[in-house]
Amino acid sequence: MTLNGHSLIAGEAIAGTSGTSFGIDPSTNAKLEPEYTLVSEDQLKVATEAAAAAFESFSTLEPERHARFLESIAANVEALGEELVERASAETGLGAERLRGERARTVNQLRLFAAVVRRGDFRGVRIDPAQPEHTPLPRADIRLRQVPLGPVAVFGASNFPLAFSVAGGDTASALAAGCPVVVKAHNAHPGTSELVGQAVVRAVRENDLHPGVFSLVYGAGTSIGQALVADPAIKAVGFTGSRAGGVALMRTAAARREPIPVYAEMSSINPVFVLPGALGGDVETLARQYLASVTGSSGQLCTSPGLLFVPAGDDGDRLAEAVAAALPGQPGQTMLTPGIASSWQEGFSALEAVADVELLARGQAGPTENAPAPAVFGADVETFTANPVLHEEVFGAASVIVRYKGAEDLAAAARTLEGQLTASVWLADDGDLATAAALLPVLEGKVGRIIVNGWPTGVEVGHAMVHGGPFPATSDSRTTSVGTLAINRFLRPVSYQNVPQELLPAPLQDANPWHVNRLVDGAAENG
Amino acid sequence: MTLNGHSLIAGEAIAGTSGTSFGIDPSTNAKLEPEYTLVSEDQLKVATEAAAAAFESFSTLEPERHARFLESIAANVEALGEELVERASAETGLGAERLRGERARTVNQLRLFAAVVRRGDFRGVRIDPAQPEHTPLPRADIRLRQVPLGPVAVFGASNFPLAFSVAGGDTASALAAGCPVVVKAHNAHPGTSELVGQAVVRAVRENDLHPGVFSLVYGAGTSIGQALVADPAIKAVGFTGSRAGGVALMRTAAARREPIPVYAEMSSINPVFVLPGALGGDVETLARQYLASVTGSSGQLCTSPGLLFVPAGDDGDRLAEAVAAALPGQPGQTMLTPGIASSWQEGFSALEAVADVELLARGQAGPTENAPAPAVFGADVETFTANPVLHEEVFGAASVIVRYKGAEDLAAAARTLEGQLTASVWLADDGDLATAAALLPVLEGKVGRIIVNGWPTGVEVGHAMVHGGPFPATSDSRTTSVGTLAINRFLRPVSYQNVPQELLPAPLQDANPWHVNRLVDGAAENG
Repeated sequence: MTLNGHSLIAGEAIAGTSGTSFGIDPSTNAKLEPEYTLVSEDQLKVATEAAAAAFESFSTLEPERHARFLESIAANVEALGEELVERASAETGLGAERLRGERARTVNQLRLFAAVVRRGDFRGVRIDPAQPEHTPLPRADIRLRQVPLGPVAVFGASNFPLAFSVAGGDTASALAAGCPVVVKAHNAHPGTSELVGQAVVRAVRENDLHPGVFSLVYGAGTSIGQALVADPAIKAVGFTGSRAGGVALMRTAAARREPIPVYAEMSSINPVFVLPGALGGDVETLARQYLASVTGSSGQLCTSPGLLFVPAGDDGDRLAEAVAAALPGQPGQTMLTPGIASSWQEGFSALEAVADVELLARGQAGPTENAPAPAVFGADVETFTANPVLHEEVFGAASVIVRYKGAEDLAAAARTLEGQLTASVWLADDGDLATAAALLPVLEGKVGRIIVNGWPTGVEVGHAMVHGGPFPATSDSRTTSVGTLAINRFLRPVSYQNVPQELLPAPLQDANPWHVNRLVDGAAENG
Repeated sequence: MTLNGHSLIAGEAIAGTSGTSFGIDPSTNAKLEPEYTLVSEDQLKVATEAAAAAFESFSTLEPERHARFLESIAANVEALGEELVERASAETGLGAERLRGERARTVNQLRLFAAVVRRGDFRGVRIDPAQPEHTPLPRADIRLRQVPLGPVAVFGASNFPLAFSVAGGDTASALAAGCPVVVKAHNAHPGTSELVGQAVVRAVRENDLHPGVFSLVYGAGTSIGQALVADPAIKAVGFTGSRAGGVALMRTAAARREPIPVYAEMSSINPVFVLPGALGGDVETLARQYLASVTGSSGQLCTSPGLLFVPAGDDGDRLAEAVAAALPGQPGQTMLTPGIASSWQEGFSALEAVADVELLARGQAGPTENAPAPAVFGADVETFTANPVLHEEVFGAASVIVRYKGAEDLAAAARTLEGQLTASVWLADDGDLATAAALLPVLEGKVGRIIVNGWPTGVEVGHAMVHGGPFPATSDSRTTSVGTLAINRFLRPVSYQNVPQELLPAPLQDANPWHVNRLVDGAAENG
């Protein structure tokens, strides 16, 4: 595949007229060819207007053709082969194995949404039949379905160059809902983005869809991103990234003449609560698993555990000692960008500067300039609750072990947490169960996913997954950005009252030609 | 029932310390006893803190008890008898028949939500069973349910003193979701609010619930409303009222440290498109029905038709003439408040002042100071598209008949509309069907409900109703404020990964003790 270094706007490679940028290999800090041209606001407008023009035909696509389009994207991404893995690895410092796994997740996700489109439950069809004898007035025939919101802006994430980027979860769920997508490429992996973008453009062409269904734009820093969110043609936004970045997009979206929803997945420290009974077993294994979860992908996962609550006293000491013994041998891995590595360093220094926070253990610096040594700190629960610094995410391999005295201490500490993607509880005996039973209602109010006897990293793409949570974990706790429920983010309900059969959309017609499941007079009816 | 003139905070009548106000009889402009005391921000805090304290027990209520609570409210509102109708009529100028109908809707709505609670579909349970053999990694057991957001602030609406007020749709759906409610009473119907508030408080007591489940506060103008939305204990807002009022609450909610969703139903002019074939029949009946929809409840309905598009030429002239002939005999009805009547007058004058807008017909002024004569204006489609004034809601009995030349004219005019609650199409022959088929996709993007051969007023409370739509009709097009789907506004998903049976919430347990329908591995399973 040839990399052109240009945006892909409604099927055409367009050279941007507002400057250029390069990908950087974070293991060498060297520029990667080719140079990428950046679009102007006028060029961006071509993409959003094409998306608006594509909406009517794409949003009414017959399910089989719609599903095949998603499957074509998956097949085309797979067909990129090792070239995609090599380019992504060069741009992100992530290893080939991790990227092959991420590619599998990306294409499985597209195929899962193809199945969702064929099944049609997301259309949310409800039919209240007419009741001519209803008093005091006859009831009209009323039918409801969910329709797509309109063109969606997607921002590629730095830490998942495939699964949360050009053809990642936001794009897959928006396209499945029937929304054209304009992706703002993440400038840290421009070549990976272009390869995947070309795969999507080919799928649009192979399935004979309106070319405005998909565009990929490269733009300067935040300005083009803000312009994209402010564009009247855009009706919703998917974003994964920093809290500051997400909040800036939320502000722009709320200040529009027509405010639009922003689904920003931002910041989470994913507390893990180890209850006393769980320390009765193999503490060394627990310590190793914890460190694996903290340091995997250099800690650059949304669900990386930044806090480990352990009981004060001997058992807690044993766990902390096991961590302190296991970490020193571990080398740092190259982080995604030089900027992310230096932000990690700032976060590390901020933790180190807090009085009563001690550095429990450090790994070794990795072989490159951007591979800092992983770090684990220790603090008591009073220090944790009193210091906002310990409540902030340090993106990368750093975590704090917090000592608590009893179950009430733990619930009180949990109440001081901001919103999180996950909370995990390790437990073993009846005493732990009682403690957990009291803790769970607090955690439910704080997080999107509760895990027992497991680690938060590793997010299954299924029907029951919630990758979401209260602010600042996300901008909208009512949704998830992973799993099939994510499609709901891009839908809204419309009712049709007394509309004749020949004017009704297919899933609402009596004949139910798309065989969707429907709620008829409040009761489920299979399609 | 004795009216005390005080707020009802967590079950207690509390005299407010920040001034007083009176209800006003809009037919005489006379004050109505008793005087109402207004709460301070500190007193408001008592209500929101009690709501937060009630959340854990109320949000986990067993369905049968939860449903009975809603039914108790309905029974207690009914038991208020004619006293409620008389007080509401005195405070709003609405007639007894209309208020009895509204009361029936209010209690039916509560009972419908009781059935929703018993059925349990809103819990949205999804179970992805463990797959120990799954590759590359074993899949954990993952279960999802929707949980209530937390305490909800509800703002009573002026135009539905029962169905959109203290125990109206927002309160019923929030309570059904498991959210405690703090209602800010509308100052235009304080006595009605207190009567209904007492009925709810009694239901809380009869069902032995935490008193913080419900509070009703009286407060000065907008300041207490803003303080309520800004309060950290509040997690969502339901509002029906003006665009300015709704937008102000949206701004406050977005500027919070933790932004929260606002469901504001605000402003809609509910266009009606009469296609040429529909004028082949009984034009006089059409004209009478139109005027009934425009003038019903003095035009103070969210779905009152503010625009009637009719073809230019003889047939359109006949309809306009029939309207002009029928209106002059019709008296104005007393509007809800003196302020609303004077706003209507301003809207009337603004329309009258637009060049090329003609006053087609007026009714007679009603018998009171606040009963302006209904008005129908006429304009051509170019005047409509060019003048923002014709796109703004005039709350009350005023409407504009817009003449269009052909089908393209109509679709172009529809594209210039802002978001609406409804759009209606009158059609009769094959030519109309073709025109409607082209118009419907445009309307779908603009409105929450599409009606064929009917009028927008009269909103059925069912499973398939959408009372919502794109901004500025509402603040959040993804929802409805009427019908059973309204419960979704107050829920968010939480996943439980590998959580043992004894810690799982009832609807997620293998035994399914609440018999809820569940999605197991993506397929529906009856409870």
